[in-house]
Amino acid sequence: MLNRNIETFLGCNSAYDQAGIVLFGAPFDSTVSYRPGTRFASREMRSQSFGLETYSPYLDSDLGDIAVFDGGDLELCIGDTGKALEQIEKYTSAILHDGKIPVMLGGEHLVTLGAFRAVFDKHPQVCIIHYDAHADLRDDYLGASLSHASVLRRCYDLVGDNRIFQFGIRSGDRCEFEFANAHTSLRKFDFAGLADTVKKLKDIPVYLTIDLDVLDPSAFPGTGTPEAGGVSFTDLIAAIREACALDIVGCDLVELSPVYDQSGVSTITACKVLRELLLSI
Amino acid sequence: MLNRNIETFLGCNSAYDQAGIVLFGAPFDSTVSYRPGTRFASREMRSQSFGLETYSPYLDSDLGDIAVFDGGDLELCIGDTGKALEQIEKYTSAILHDGKIPVMLGGEHLVTLGAFRAVFDKHPQVCIIHYDAHADLRDDYLGASLSHASVLRRCYDLVGDNRIFQFGIRSGDRCEFEFANAHTSLRKFDFAGLADTVKKLKDIPVYLTIDLDVLDPSAFPGTGTPEAGGVSFTDLIAAIREACALDIVGCDLVELSPVYDQSGVSTITACKVLRELLLSI
Amino acid sequence: MLNRNIETFLGCNSAYDQAGIVLFGAPFDSTVSYRPGTRFASREMRSQSFGLETYSPYLDSDLGDIAVFDGGDLELCIGDTGKALEQIEKYTSAILHDGKIPVMLGGEHLVTLGAFRAVFDKHPQVCIIHYDAHADLRDDYLGASLSHASVLRRCYDLVGDNRIFQFGIRSGDRCEFEFANAHTSLRKFDFAGLADTVKKLKDIPVYLTIDLDVLDPSAFPGTGTPEAGGVSFTDLIAAIREACALDIVGCDLVELSPVYDQSGVSTITACKVLRELLLSI
Amino acid sequence: MLNRNIETFLGCNSAYDQAGIVLFGAPFDSTVSYRPGTRFASREMRSQSFGLETYSPYLDSDLGDIAVFDGGDLELCIGDTGKALEQIEKYTSAILHDGKIPVMLGGEHLVTLGAFRAVFDKHPQVCIIHYDAHADLRDDYLGASLSHASVLRRCYDLVGDNRIFQFGIRSGDRCEFEFANAHTSLRKFDFAGLADTVKKLKDIPVYLTIDLDVLDPSAFPGTGTPEAGGVSFTDLIAAIREACALDIVGCDLVELSPVYDQSGVSTITACKVLRELLLSI
Amino acid sequence: MLNRNIETFLGCNSAYDQAGIVLFGAPFDSTVSYRPGTRFASREMRSQSFGLETYSPYLDSDLGDIAVFDGGDLELCIGDTGKALEQIEKYTSAILHDGKIPVMLGGEHLVTLGAFRAVFDKHPQVCIIHYDAHADLRDDYLGASLSHASVLRRCYDLVGDNRIFQFGIRSGDRCEFEFANAHTSLRKFDFAGLADTVKKLKDIPVYLTIDLDVLDPSAFPGTGTPEAGGVSFTDLIAAIREACALDIVGCDLVELSPVYDQSGVSTITACKVLRELLLSI
Amino acid sequence: MLNRNIETFLGCNSAYDQAGIVLFGAPFDSTVSYRPGTRFASREMRSQSFGLETYSPYLDSDLGDIAVFDGGDLELCIGDTGKALEQIEKYTSAILHDGKIPVMLGGEHLVTLGAFRAVFDKHPQVCIIHYDAHADLRDDYLGASLSHASVLRRCYDLVGDNRIFQFGIRSGDRCEFEFANAHTSLRKFDFAGLADTVKKLKDIPVYLTIDLDVLDPSAFPGTGTPEAGGVSFTDLIAAIREACALDIVGCDLVELSPVYDQSGVSTITACKVLRELLLSI
Repeated sequence: MLNRNIETFLGCNSAYDQAGIVLFGAPFDSTVSYRPGTRFASREMRSQSFGLETYSPYLDSDLGDIAVFDGGDLELCIGDTGKALEQIEKYTSAILHDGKIPVMLGGEHLVTLGAFRAVFDKHPQVCIIHYDAHADLRDDYLGASLSHASVLRRCYDLVGDNRIFQFGIRSGDRCEFEFANAHTSLRKFDFAGLADTVKKLKDIPVYLTIDLDVLDPSAFPGTGTPEAGGVSFTDLIAAIREACALDIVGCDLVELSPVYDQSGVSTITACKVLRELLLSI
Repeated sequence: MLNRNIETFLGCNSAYDQAGIVLFGAPFDSTVSYRPGTRFASREMRSQSFGLETYSPYLDSDLGDIAVFDGGDLELCIGDTGKALEQIEKYTSAILHDGKIPVMLGGEHLVTLGAFRAVFDKHPQVCIIHYDAHADLRDDYLGASLSHASVLRRCYDLVGDNRIFQFGIRSGDRCEFEFANAHTSLRKFDFAGLADTVKKLKDIPVYLTIDLDVLDPSAFPGTGTPEAGGVSFTDLIAAIREACALDIVGCDLVELSPVYDQSGVSTITACKVLRELLLSI
Repeated sequence: MLNRNIETFLGCNSAYDQAGIVLFGAPFDSTVSYRPGTRFASREMRSQSFGLETYSPYLDSDLGDIAVFDGGDLELCIGDTGKALEQIEKYTSAILHDGKIPVMLGGEHLVTLGAFRAVFDKHPQVCIIHYDAHADLRDDYLGASLSHASVLRRCYDLVGDNRIFQFGIRSGDRCEFEFANAHTSLRKFDFAGLADTVKKLKDIPVYLTIDLDVLDPSAFPGTGTPEAGGVSFTDLIAAIREACALDIVGCDLVELSPVYDQSGVSTITACKVLRELLLSI
Repeated sequence: MLNRNIETFLGCNSAYDQAGIVLFGAPFDSTVSYRPGTRFASREMRSQSFGLETYSPYLDSDLGDIAVFDGGDLELCIGDTGKALEQIEKYTSAILHDGKIPVMLGGEHLVTLGAFRAVFDKHPQVCIIHYDAHADLRDDYLGASLSHASVLRRCYDLVGDNRIFQFGIRSGDRCEFEFANAHTSLRKFDFAGLADTVKKLKDIPVYLTIDLDVLDPSAFPGTGTPEAGGVSFTDLIAAIREACALDIVGCDLVELSPVYDQSGVSTITACKVLRELLLSI
Repeated sequence: MLNRNIETFLGCNSAYDQAGIVLFGAPFDSTVSYRPGTRFASREMRSQSFGLETYSPYLDSDLGDIAVFDGGDLELCIGDTGKALEQIEKYTSAILHDGKIPVMLGGEHLVTLGAFRAVFDKHPQVCIIHYDAHADLRDDYLGASLSHASVLRRCYDLVGDNRIFQFGIRSGDRCEFEFANAHTSLRKFDFAGLADTVKKLKDIPVYLTIDLDVLDPSAFPGTGTPEAGGVSFTDLIAAIREACALDIVGCDLVELSPVYDQSGVSTITACKVLRELLLSI
Repeated sequence: MLNRNIETFLGCNSAYDQAGIVLFGAPFDSTVSYRPGTRFASREMRSQSFGLETYSPYLDSDLGDIAVFDGGDLELCIGDTGKALEQIEKYTSAILHDGKIPVMLGGEHLVTLGAFRAVFDKHPQVCIIHYDAHADLRDDYLGASLSHASVLRRCYDLVGDNRIFQFGIRSGDRCEFEFANAHTSLRKFDFAGLADTVKKLKDIPVYLTIDLDVLDPSAFPGTGTPEAGGVSFTDLIAAIREACALDIVGCDLVELSPVYDQSGVSTITACKVLRELLLSI
């Protein structure tokens, strides 16, 4: 009865050694160009996850059936972008080294770069599946090359042509779409073509990065840069199930910004997406 | 000109004796496990209903064409669950005794039990049609058998097998879905199969209980336990129209929690659902 | 570097003389019957538009490619409806006189009457395409003939039978729908039939008035009189593109009320609709 | 048990004939220059008043000890300022004719003009005590002479020099303060000098008009034009008690705008001010 | 680096055995008559406490200097009031048995009864110091004797006359003030007389119960039943310091309801009050 | 009539050449440790300032009497702290070079460092008067030496001992207070001693930096790190008037974070503080 308070995400109570998946938070949002606030996402998700069931009627499976360790939030150096990314990379490397799958909760999308560097280091042949409203392919943003608007471009710098597969994209400047035309596979607005991608990436390690603003703002208003015209929750979890048939070696869920949704629906929805993601991997 | 202030739901101005339908509120939310607040629903619905039209272009009919009496809110014993349910039961019985149809506004879903007991007493052969995101079939919740998460289970205790028809369900623990498999008719996610149910229940008295969280949280964020992946407003009113072809002997609308929707859209939407429900009965 | 602060809507930086389109705000909401607040719409849209891209992946075109002048907000006489409408009419006439297309941001829907009078004066054969949740065909509202609920009726007084084409309408009293039956072309709930209308209006000058509450409140809660059951953002911009194939001689976007949407999504969505509208004209 | 829903302000249950005080709402805010929303004040105050006690420990008296009739809200012509004021005047006259004291809940401050005209008609020697953050002495506002910023000036047009006593004023343009210097008694920032005013007005009928924004915005954020540097709740109710030693022949409480205070504190505070006012008269 | 997520209140990291103080949450609000929501208080306080410093410039001491164990939140039976109180009593008894001081975070005020029963059992001569806006001396509330409005009355049932000392009280019905006159020591509005009380209680064990709504709603809007006219934060922490000179054998902090304060100020302020309380004991 | 939209802070319409004061915004908040959002402050202040009067009854003077140029917001490199500070420094230098007084609107407090470097460069003997809740004297924050929590420490690195005068401080870690003891003049909680400081600094150039969180959160909830126990608005503007008797060579107003105050009061209050500051210089 008299135990120290422990707060993990719903049902993620496994000991580290037993766990196949390690969940952790990367509360960082210093490079956001429009509305910051994602640093509170992982904390708020843990806090609100008890409003959810562990059982998924979509998958007929339960978080109690799998072993996930919740490592809490990294204490990142706010204001020093490079350093924060290194901290994320180091933590992710440790997880990978122990043969576990890292599942990172953002923070802003730039945190993906830290985790992906570690994954790329271990799996140099890794490809990226990317669900997002934004292309994130800018070479820099107001002079900063480490920016949430450039994160996929920085990943591209590592993997090169034809290894990034983008879905749901509905915002960017003209150059980003031209860049995508030449160097990545980009699907506008929805998930059409995902089945082909999954077929193509069979037996290749895949990093799955999910920017929650791929959802329509009606379903997910609590994000920094909402973009009308997105996908539905049902579409998204179907797309997650589909991608998770592949060999997922790391993944993340980013850009929940709780303060912009007073109803709490965005946080609860993010929790439900995470449950489905954990059960799908 | 100098009359005492009377506030009824929009267009529900009939005298009691003339009315075929009696509307009343049951402002109770003491057993809610996650976020309380539904006790303010009926009051807020009356207050905001004047932002609505009495005329429905869906049905080409008008609240002015029917006779509804608004009896206001019951003054329930907050903190004593059993007593509150008895108060609701007694009030509902009086309405039924006078040959009128009770339409109750929650409050949390547990209030259904009070009203349904009265209906079951008068119509022992009654069946239940249930629209909800949650199965509400737990045997108890943290030891309490009178809980919003158990309300359909308590109704089941009264009616027994094959008399409860559930639609839109997308949340529950594994046991609830197994229980439903054995004892109720449960449709996950949507209203498919409703036409068959309606056919089957022809000439049988029906109690219709609508938990508004069956709606997708994008359409209805103002509820205690929002669940992504729900039905649209248009789907819901179509399903209401369909069920109301049956012999509805009582119904309720529960789980609006206005404080969680600063935009007021949830309250206005609940009002519109109620208008369509009243016109459909 | 040391320039006076200028704030225009995103990418609307053209000089007046070069511009083909003139954007301006009409911050007026004095006749609103339910929830006021639209007077802040144009100001808030300018302020938040920098969260948007100038490039549209829907149209593959960019605000940088066209020449729009942003004339700011009119300083209207709050509390004197007739005078405010005259100010709007006079400003619109000046724009038309210079051979440019006026694009007005409301304010409440009544502002349309001011702009339309100027357009009708220049183009007496003009027809109206109207996207809205509400018919706005009341003859008066609580005795006031200049009301947001009567604006299309007042336009009808100018143009007469069969020159108003209404889409998406899902609210009004019975009389309005009967009036529409006799005198306008009214499509309930959606945009079906728009293609026929566009065919019919070929080579006729058209005024396009868009009440943003035609959108479903899930996508657009920030409005004074939200009505469940509306169209999606994707439907709306498709309908805008379709109507803009015609000879648009003036248009407006009304009824954003930012205070009712704490998430800011409604404002950002209105900005995106405006971008698509400007690029479609 | 089966009575029609009646909603009055807490404890204002007297029949009209027995009542010495008549409470009514004037939900009008069409001339507001900055942020509208006061039209919802009286409705919201009734709805939230049940969170208050009828007993005042300040005065050791109870609303149950006095007889107040709540006449509900007037249905005013939104958008036609002159007509709305006439409706208010007519209703107030009826109350005065029956020998009762009118207590009006705004709405914006301009509603005072309607009520005061009726009072002035019956009591031509009436003086005004005015608690407010704003002088409200403009001759017109953007050309409109019937404006919330001109309401005391319009009252001055009726009563003339030295009959208006203003307290707490901390905002206005230079001309208003100069006008006050010449024609009214104006006390900046607080209630100093109120005792002298009370002495001076002994045996003279007094109309008391309270703009709730006289309170500091920390205590009362829910108002259209908040002004830092105001008085405390304790100061205000002391000042009300002091003024109510006089022969109050009418009074009002204006400028609550509930939507701007998500916490509900402003509405509850307005209710408490009203309770103290009713018990002090 | 790879530790399970632990979330304690800021600086409360001591092991149980080393700790002199045990902090725990009692997330219960089922008997609240007006606005529920306090069940989220303790969780939200832990989550937001990292926005605070561990050092107090008021006391020149630091949470790092003392040993506090944070036991997390009890999992209480929502909906069964009696059972929930027993759970609280049992947990508190265990703490007392180990010679430690229990500091409980509500929840609504009724939780005090559970903790106080355990304290009274161990220290039968205990007196109560009570800071609150409300007298909480009702014998029952709508028939329920276990109600947040009756909690001090239930404590009185245990301790009898002249052992309860109430400060800051500004709300209640007439009977409660009469009861206090006869049986407790009640100070209206502020803390005057506290020094005398402290002198009187020297060497007697004291339970300190702090209902945070004793604060003025300007400083603390996030509570279920805000009451204008309260004390300031500075007054409150001075009063806490003063009382803590006594032999405090248990204490609690109740009635924070985070959802009613979108700014988060109430939660942060509650955290700061708790820091000062922990450092003062 | 047809001019491009210009939006300046209320009454700051002077041409650059005529202006004695140059106002500009520094929308930067990347190093904030708790809740970001101040980047929207200057924009929101311009937008809301029209709800204010240009005339100050405190000072009996009017913004129309002085000449202020509003240069708009700098476009700063979000995510690269060093670069952003250089941009601010360069812009401030240009203003100083032209013999004008810079008045900067934050952004977070770190922006002060950029402006102060420019001021220190021109006036090496400059002293700092600092109003704040927080000492901001940390040597670094989680390893970052350029942090909002270190800004006065970085200024100290430039000016050295006994040249920084801090008032209102009520938060920091123990080391900061010890550092202040040794190297700055720090007054806890209020403005006592300000008169002496003003006497001492006669004829010395002074930079005045005002962190608006020096205000009590009741008056100013819209800030990233609210601290209970602050000063009132009236205290603050008195302290500003007092300091402005000195030779102010630059000043700033920082840490408004509009999103945390849904009522808008914080923004309006910040505008009023700015008006008083501009009129006091």
